[in-house]
Amino acid sequence: MIVKERQLSTTSDDVNRPLIHYTPNYGWMNDPNGLFYDKKAAVWHMYYQYNPNDTVWGLPLYWGHATSKDLSVWEDQVPAIGPDNDNDGIFSGSIVVDHNNTTGFFDDSIHPDQRVVAIYTLHTSEKQTQDLAYSLDGGYTFTKYSGNPVLDVNSTQFRDPKVFWHEPTNQWIMVLAKSQEFKIQIFGSIDLKSWSLHSNFSSGLYGFQYECPGLVEVPIENSTETKWVMFLAINPGMPLGGSANQYFVGHFDGFTFVPDDTQTRLQDWGKDYYAFQAFSDVPKEMGVLGLAWASNWQYANKVPTSGWRSSMSVARNHTLKNIAINPETKVLSLVQKPVLGSTVQKTNLIDQDFCIFGKNTLVNATASQSGVFEIDFTFKVHKTTELQKTLELEIISNTKDGKTESIRTGFDVDGGSFYVDRGIDNAFNKNPFFTDKTSAYVDPMEYDDSGLPIYKFYAIVDKNILEVYLNDGAATLTNTFFMSDGFTPESVVLSSTCSSTFEVKSEINELTI
Amino acid sequence: MIVKERQLSTTSDDVNRPLIHYTPNYGWMNDPNGLFYDKKAAVWHMYYQYNPNDTVWGLPLYWGHATSKDLSVWEDQVPAIGPDNDNDGIFSGSIVVDHNNTTGFFDDSIHPDQRVVAIYTLHTSEKQTQDLAYSLDGGYTFTKYSGNPVLDVNSTQFRDPKVFWHEPTNQWIMVLAKSQEFKIQIFGSIDLKSWSLHSNFSSGLYGFQYECPGLVEVPIENSTETKWVMFLAINPGMPLGGSANQYFVGHFDGFTFVPDDTQTRLQDWGKDYYAFQAFSDVPKEMGVLGLAWASNWQYANKVPTSGWRSSMSVARNHTLKNIAINPETKVLSLVQKPVLGSTVQKTNLIDQDFCIFGKNTLVNATASQSGVFEIDFTFKVHKTTELQKTLELEIISNTKDGKTESIRTGFDVDGGSFYVDRGIDNAFNKNPFFTDKTSAYVDPMEYDDSGLPIYKFYAIVDKNILEVYLNDGAATLTNTFFMSDGFTPESVVLSSTCSSTFEVKSEINELTI
Repeated sequence: MIVKERQLSTTSDDVNRPLIHYTPNYGWMNDPNGLFYDKKAAVWHMYYQYNPNDTVWGLPLYWGHATSKDLSVWEDQVPAIGPDNDNDGIFSGSIVVDHNNTTGFFDDSIHPDQRVVAIYTLHTSEKQTQDLAYSLDGGYTFTKYSGNPVLDVNSTQFRDPKVFWHEPTNQWIMVLAKSQEFKIQIFGSIDLKSWSLHSNFSSGLYGFQYECPGLVEVPIENSTETKWVMFLAINPGMPLGGSANQYFVGHFDGFTFVPDDTQTRLQDWGKDYYAFQAFSDVPKEMGVLGLAWASNWQYANKVPTSGWRSSMSVARNHTLKNIAINPETKVLSLVQKPVLGSTVQKTNLIDQDFCIFGKNTLVNATASQSGVFEIDFTFKVHKTTELQKTLELEIISNTKDGKTESIRTGFDVDGGSFYVDRGIDNAFNKNPFFTDKTSAYVDPMEYDDSGLPIYKFYAIVDKNILEVYLNDGAATLTNTFFMSDGFTPESVVLSSTCSSTFEVKSEINELTI
Repeated sequence: MIVKERQLSTTSDDVNRPLIHYTPNYGWMNDPNGLFYDKKAAVWHMYYQYNPNDTVWGLPLYWGHATSKDLSVWEDQVPAIGPDNDNDGIFSGSIVVDHNNTTGFFDDSIHPDQRVVAIYTLHTSEKQTQDLAYSLDGGYTFTKYSGNPVLDVNSTQFRDPKVFWHEPTNQWIMVLAKSQEFKIQIFGSIDLKSWSLHSNFSSGLYGFQYECPGLVEVPIENSTETKWVMFLAINPGMPLGGSANQYFVGHFDGFTFVPDDTQTRLQDWGKDYYAFQAFSDVPKEMGVLGLAWASNWQYANKVPTSGWRSSMSVARNHTLKNIAINPETKVLSLVQKPVLGSTVQKTNLIDQDFCIFGKNTLVNATASQSGVFEIDFTFKVHKTTELQKTLELEIISNTKDGKTESIRTGFDVDGGSFYVDRGIDNAFNKNPFFTDKTSAYVDPMEYDDSGLPIYKFYAIVDKNILEVYLNDGAATLTNTFFMSDGFTPESVVLSSTCSSTFEVKSEINELTI
């Protein structure tokens, strides 16, 4: 393993380092890789694209590694897999647990739940191939397979294998990106070593190239049925600029993925949600869990953090639900709920039942210890003729030299849309790709007895990242933000521009670990 | 016709009123309607969704009307079609020239090129139906057909008919939106009065609803072939927020539209390009011409203009071209070129051949009369190791009270993307949906003999709108912007953050009429 002598700061107490979003202690991080759950040890493993030698992307690239008991607090481990040459990279990939030892890498001394095999892309200047490495200690150290590569089509744009066991057809399935041909390729294997191409899938927004596909069986809420969801990352060239994830809902028979419709669905409506991956080997009753890199290639290498760059999203639980997207149509859509682990402590700051909001009604909360918030409000919209009808949550920094900084999120009745505005007048906001405003339209979640529309808004504010979940996760908006040096979120204020449009129930908690 | 007494300013000399983008003299405007070319009179007709009684959308809604000899300078006409009741609206639709009098509305006294029939949606509180009106004076005044409606499916969400004559099958084709069922419906008729449903088409980004479809046969560049392009407007719920247009490329046999692939393509990468419509009855040799409403429903009703609201884009000529979207793949994509009419005068301000740009090299031009610019530059990107590699064009207002305001557009080598940043610190930029930064990724247009990538950038700056055309129209970015009262674009400055990365050829003209 080639980790150059590190020249970077090792400080991990930066004021703007998120608390419950994973960040590398130092160095550069991008895509999550090899996410899996060790059922025997009850430990979550997260690997990630890692450059320990700098705070920008660069070769040699490693699989960094961290573990968690609850998906919220992560313990750094030494990098798990590295390239043999300084000009190469261990690019994105996945981990499977080879319970039945189909690979022959294991003997009886290794518990079936800890027979860990990584399938990743080896990137060299000549080409990208798919390689294997296995671990005899439950995912901490790896041995590269002597028969590598296991998949080589002599291409420089062929990467990001995500593998899972398909029970009905008794085979391993790999989805990966033939990136610049805009093909998600589906391969099958019985031993992870020999692969046959089953089919290709192309759809949706193309941008410059396909990356990091994923194929996951997702339960439909209030039903015993499931559907298959194909996740697909695009970079650059998404409508909001740069990198983003889309998904398709359909049927998978072990060979071909057939979408139910030709709809292109966004996975998240913010600018910072990329390269989503689901955890392997999670017991069914725990749900479909996964997370994404919370950044955007348009500015990821330039964000103003010190000694480290990028965070992951929090882990999310995924289901499918028939959601009314207008009065005439329901569409089977992804529903995402954040996972807050048992180590996360909540201190209640506000707990207020429905009350009519006036122009001077404020819900004001300060998280004095951590600066980390969980915000949950449900609101009804009354009919009024007022011109400006906005319910707004302002996230305000501490005051320094007489100055405060803030970002805001809220709901606008006229457009029926939620918004996030991270425009702060500071040095980083001059970056020409750091878009200030993102938004998401959702139809009302439900109607009360008198026909008033009801919406739900949930958010996690964690130092330099805001994750918004609308209508119990029917849409999400994930955006990082960067206040000036010395400014950090300290309080949140909920207010309205109108006197009697909103009836609001609110709960605000401070989060600590 | 019910036009209430107008209470609005009739000033038409507002400093921020565009010169070569159509704006209504007073009142509210949205979608372009009934665009057609009168071959006999050699006159372009533009109708549009019009509320003459206010500067926000409202009923009764009319078809406003303007005419032009060259598509750049428009003459206002009296509103052409209005509803019989104050609570109704003449919603979007199209015009065809019924050369062969299939409707029986005309006699020999009306020249075949002036047999004008409008097909529009009559919106009432009960439902939306498709109605006809015909003109015996070449499109200035209309008589409603006594047999209206011609298409009524008892729906409140059924609108925006775009009709054309399909020669191979000898029939009129109508595409319209069953909006909230996400269906573009394709109907056929031999007389415009009786319609049969041929097929439905659904694809791409759904958002809240479908609006304003269009189906047009578009020539492929450097070929005698054509393909059919299906245009589709979505509002709200597009990824950039609010309203935007997408398109699909495929085959049409007179009954069914079959796309060539499942790709979702954006028509424009800015925030202000909606409800595109192509002109009817344009001679083939003039090309496929059309234009869009240059606004976004997220803020259209609130933009800070006085006495009038909204402009159209300039007319664009459309072709299809196999464009390299990465090194491995070419995709048949729409290419858009702006039409500047013969009344537009160009005064050259800068005309400079390729030269290496240094950090202190500036191309600086002032449009002293009109404040309206045409900007054209071609640049090569040299390999350098500099960190910030941006070529930027700043559009700067006049100075007032010691202050200037500016917006910027440019190219960033790291991300390989073009950007527009309309973030100006003024009152309107507080609107939570008026996104500051938009961007578009395009692969290099070509490579020079030494392998250096070449890009082309063309822009029209017209008071409060910026239209950017990249690589001869392979991608466009249309954004309005609003400087503070009394500030108006006066000069443009091209500069670079690096000393020897760009080799630039530039031409800048002032535009007047």
